[in-house]
Amino acid sequence: MSSSSQNYLKIGIIGFGPFAQFLVKTMIKQGHSITATSRSDYNDLCNQLGVSFFRDMNAFLESNNDVILLSTSILSLSQVIKSLPLNCLRKPTLFVDVLSVKEYPRDLMLQVLPSDSDVLCTHPMFGPESGRHGWKDLSFMYDKVRITNEATCSSFLQIFASEGCKMMEMTCEEHDKLAARSQFLTHTIGRVLAEMKVEPTPIDTKGFQKLVEVSANKDYMQKESTSRDSFDLFSGLFVHNRFAQQQLREVELAFETVKQQLLREDERGAGTQLNHFAADNDKFSQMKTFLFTYGFLPSFSDVIWNC
Amino acid sequence: MSSSSQNYLKIGIIGFGPFAQFLVKTMIKQGHSITATSRSDYNDLCNQLGVSFFRDMNAFLESNNDVILLSTSILSLSQVIKSLPLNCLRKPTLFVDVLSVKEYPRDLMLQVLPSDSDVLCTHPMFGPESGRHGWKDLSFMYDKVRITNEATCSSFLQIFASEGCKMMEMTCEEHDKLAARSQFLTHTIGRVLAEMKVEPTPIDTKGFQKLVEVSANKDYMQKESTSRDSFDLFSGLFVHNRFAQQQLREVELAFETVKQQLLREDERGAGTQLNHFAADNDKFSQMKTFLFTYGFLPSFSDVIWNC
Repeated sequence: MSSSSQNYLKIGIIGFGPFAQFLVKTMIKQGHSITATSRSDYNDLCNQLGVSFFRDMNAFLESNNDVILLSTSILSLSQVIKSLPLNCLRKPTLFVDVLSVKEYPRDLMLQVLPSDSDVLCTHPMFGPESGRHGWKDLSFMYDKVRITNEATCSSFLQIFASEGCKMMEMTCEEHDKLAARSQFLTHTIGRVLAEMKVEPTPIDTKGFQKLVEVSANKDYMQKESTSRDSFDLFSGLFVHNRFAQQQLREVELAFETVKQQLLREDERGAGTQLNHFAADNDKFSQMKTFLFTYGFLPSFSDVIWNC
Repeated sequence: MSSSSQNYLKIGIIGFGPFAQFLVKTMIKQGHSITATSRSDYNDLCNQLGVSFFRDMNAFLESNNDVILLSTSILSLSQVIKSLPLNCLRKPTLFVDVLSVKEYPRDLMLQVLPSDSDVLCTHPMFGPESGRHGWKDLSFMYDKVRITNEATCSSFLQIFASEGCKMMEMTCEEHDKLAARSQFLTHTIGRVLAEMKVEPTPIDTKGFQKLVEVSANKDYMQKESTSRDSFDLFSGLFVHNRFAQQQLREVELAFETVKQQLLREDERGAGTQLNHFAADNDKFSQMKTFLFTYGFLPSFSDVIWNC
């Protein structure tokens, strides 16, 4: 699509949390007209940004939008979409979602929305932190699930293309397979490190510094308002991406494999060092603790206990 | 120590693998005189670098070094140090190690080396990849375990200080505690991701890109010649750092906590969505697979099987 064909759109946003606020700044900069509605009252913020905020969903849907952008949490989408007073829509509308899973909103939208409305599933693979200096070269995934009005759809996609995003067209299924292995896996490792309260040390290697960044994933935190919202995003990635369960299982199996490799090495190393143990009670005591902790191989334990 | 007090040292290196080769280039640039010995024959490479290579350990020890730098693998240190013909030493010498664990080489050196030799334990927290554009602001840990000749020790430390390293003096115990939580943890996560064969996708987030870098840790790979050597380093970090076992256990517990959080959310989510299952056989079948995979809570399973 050439840049000359860009049209200004009237975009209505449902769910005005941090991620929608982040997207909206670029849309406004490009000249689009924005309305919004949300569970919480964002009237003052919307006034500052130049966005028309509606508390009443009927009035919001009646306001004649070309595009309705669903920017709710994954976990609340079902409830939100099923409670829309769709009879208030004035015309066929392009519905777009920006959730981090894709098959789930696709199925919900196809099930609930009027058949004369178009459906575009998208996932901007960035957020307030990684996109704070612009969107150039950041990936934008989309799937034209049900599009009859090509012009409106193209104008919407142009919002991201014109900022330099890498426009990745793929099916929702393909997205969910890849995202389970990338985004969900990253969040899982980040959660594990956060659970361990991993923090910088005075002797960090570069590799560890990257891990600390993963653990304090700012996009992830800034996409949601509170840590509860942030956990909702993580659990949404798991509950509503059918490929995530397998990835969780794979992490567990891979960890078990690595652990067993280490324990075998430790057994081998300790086996060759038995002679040192008599003069090294401290290490012997560590070894006992270790064997207890891991329920170590009995054959090896026998050797140790009898030495 | 002022830069005017820097003296040129005669440094003998035991173990001339990739990490020693990396360190030596800066030492030579600074004007120090280097000899080396190693299990493998590095004669040609040493000739190119301007290093005197000895195949014979007696001749190496007789060559009157001010400093002997131990740059073996963790797993081979014990064998190497115990087979040194120490009677060949011509004078009291400063022994330095650069291993990624510190209590273990400290104990070995104090046990084996002559009491008139000095012992300095060090760990440059960088490698051929992270240090390829210089060592400025990279951490260098050291512990002056037994130093009588302060001048030689200071001249050796100055090699790193003058390149701009952050000079971190701490005990070997303190190092091992911190490194178990940073370097060993990083290697563990990297190994888990490598075991999963994690690779870039067309829709990577920035966070995931960092994880891929951790998984393909180039310092880690380049510190050792082969993937077997690289695994030896990893298992050395585990077997010879008494704090590593606890960290492995903590990763496992943290993963288990995160997994249980997800499973609880999934149970809750699925519980509220039971009404959808009748019309959604595909998801029902996924759920059964999932319940089977994880040996899910029986009370919840009962609800599902009976619906």
